[in-house]
Amino acid sequence: MRKLKITGYGISLPKNKVIFNEQIRYRISAEENQLSLLVEACEKALISAKIKIEDIDCIVAACAVGVQPIPCTAALVHEKIAKGLDIPALDINTTCTSFITAFDTMSYLIEAGRYENILIVAGDVSSLALNPKQKESYELFSDGAAAFIISKTIENKGIICSAQKTWSEAAHTTEIRGGLTNFLPNNFNENTKEEYMFDMNGKAVLALSLKKLPKMMDEFLKENEISVEDIDMLIPHQASVAMPVIMAKLNIPVEKYINLVSEYGNMVSASVPLTLCLALENKKIKSGDRVFLMGTAAGLTTNMLYIKI
Amino acid sequence: MRKLKITGYGISLPKNKVIFNEQIRYRISAEENQLSLLVEACEKALISAKIKIEDIDCIVAACAVGVQPIPCTAALVHEKIAKGLDIPALDINTTCTSFITAFDTMSYLIEAGRYENILIVAGDVSSLALNPKQKESYELFSDGAAAFIISKTIENKGIICSAQKTWSEAAHTTEIRGGLTNFLPNNFNENTKEEYMFDMNGKAVLALSLKKLPKMMDEFLKENEISVEDIDMLIPHQASVAMPVIMAKLNIPVEKYINLVSEYGNMVSASVPLTLCLALENKKIKSGDRVFLMGTAAGLTTNMLYIKI
Repeated sequence: MRKLKITGYGISLPKNKVIFNEQIRYRISAEENQLSLLVEACEKALISAKIKIEDIDCIVAACAVGVQPIPCTAALVHEKIAKGLDIPALDINTTCTSFITAFDTMSYLIEAGRYENILIVAGDVSSLALNPKQKESYELFSDGAAAFIISKTIENKGIICSAQKTWSEAAHTTEIRGGLTNFLPNNFNENTKEEYMFDMNGKAVLALSLKKLPKMMDEFLKENEISVEDIDMLIPHQASVAMPVIMAKLNIPVEKYINLVSEYGNMVSASVPLTLCLALENKKIKSGDRVFLMGTAAGLTTNMLYIKI
Repeated sequence: MRKLKITGYGISLPKNKVIFNEQIRYRISAEENQLSLLVEACEKALISAKIKIEDIDCIVAACAVGVQPIPCTAALVHEKIAKGLDIPALDINTTCTSFITAFDTMSYLIEAGRYENILIVAGDVSSLALNPKQKESYELFSDGAAAFIISKTIENKGIICSAQKTWSEAAHTTEIRGGLTNFLPNNFNENTKEEYMFDMNGKAVLALSLKKLPKMMDEFLKENEISVEDIDMLIPHQASVAMPVIMAKLNIPVEKYINLVSEYGNMVSASVPLTLCLALENKKIKSGDRVFLMGTAAGLTTNMLYIKI
């Protein structure tokens, strides 16, 4: 076990909501932006952990899309919450599962004694890039952010096991093609504008997930000698309303996973940490529980992380 | 020491060169792009390591600017070199020092036994975003890519110590502000086009570097009981023609560091790995040498990494 514990967490939800077929989706207002959500989530996490920013040893931004091409998003968060300090800041990105990848990766640095307290913040404002013509994604995604502070501990808590796989045959099933070097901003015009918008082939993602996930899950459980009964709660990425289909295929009973797609939508990188925050707040997860974080992301990447809270 | 060894490396230089005041700068041609450079560097690294892609356990893209906002750059590299395989792919970003941060971070996962062979690729095509009006950066930057394969070893080789610091008071001294959520592509027009271009205040970066680096270096050497005499070669980020000023301030004699700014320019994330590749190729660095990687990046972030090769 890579020993660590969650010492603080916080979420940031935008002011505006929209409703599509009774499904609630969050949208930033004119006064909000990606950075303001990330900063609010971090500030709440610091309050919740009852530690000062001076006690944080590393700031990791784990967003799908950044605030600016340069510098990295973590440096811009740093400027708002840690200006004048010399805390290292870096970004880790696997799109929707960036939080799990960052949590997984940085746990090794806690285990090895490099850092004691790490602040990981995830958040996206996909509403800025949604295509009204693509109803499937337009009515699914939400804006939001969530932050966690993970800390060294001597208690019997931490990451029991984790895995990541990327299947790039689906690299183009979820994309924003324009904005960086592949398709530059200066190509923007009325004819090309959809290149800069979110473009998802949900059916293809679901089909590949249904093909790949059961085998990966099966191997992960076997290799690590875990049975579904051992898992107290599974936090899936809130990918879509098809989540129950995938959970059924993985033999996860409905009381063992949290589905908030109707209430929050798919918050991209914020979905997993926000769902985990709410579960901790609402005592659906308590100290000592064995929690399974799982998500699929553009790539197609899948992360699994099994943790004793 | 976090044991690992470099088992392969490769570089990719674009076809086109331009010369400003006898300084050579590389520029991608119409047939090249960021992804093609990254892929070429990876393919060369695999050949150099004499291993197949199937033996790679993780692909990390360590670029300053990505290929697309979604998916992450590593997934797009994966599609070109590992399609059909399930190797995990992720991005790690601290702008110009992304390679050092990725090397540093992923070394813990090798040390802990999570992965045996990791492919790290860095590369940028800043020429696409340079502002001809800003001569200082327009005549400094180059396009290029470099890849390394780092592997588990039982030999007495690896990372002896490393450090990173971020000083966000300089978060806006090196920027590309437009293209992502802060300033969307759909704001692009003749009046705003410079927001999407590289914008550097080189004097401010140099001033802060001269203020912060000597203290960080001093502490790093003291804490880890290293003297400058122990270092066989220092590979600095090829930040600018002012490199000798900083090296002098750090008391690094001219024969102990590699300065290729005239020959290659500042290749953003590719500068450190490309310089390291060339030094290995030209036997300026050989097995057993103690090498110091160092760089400053937008953020302002500084990385130091001391490795026995």
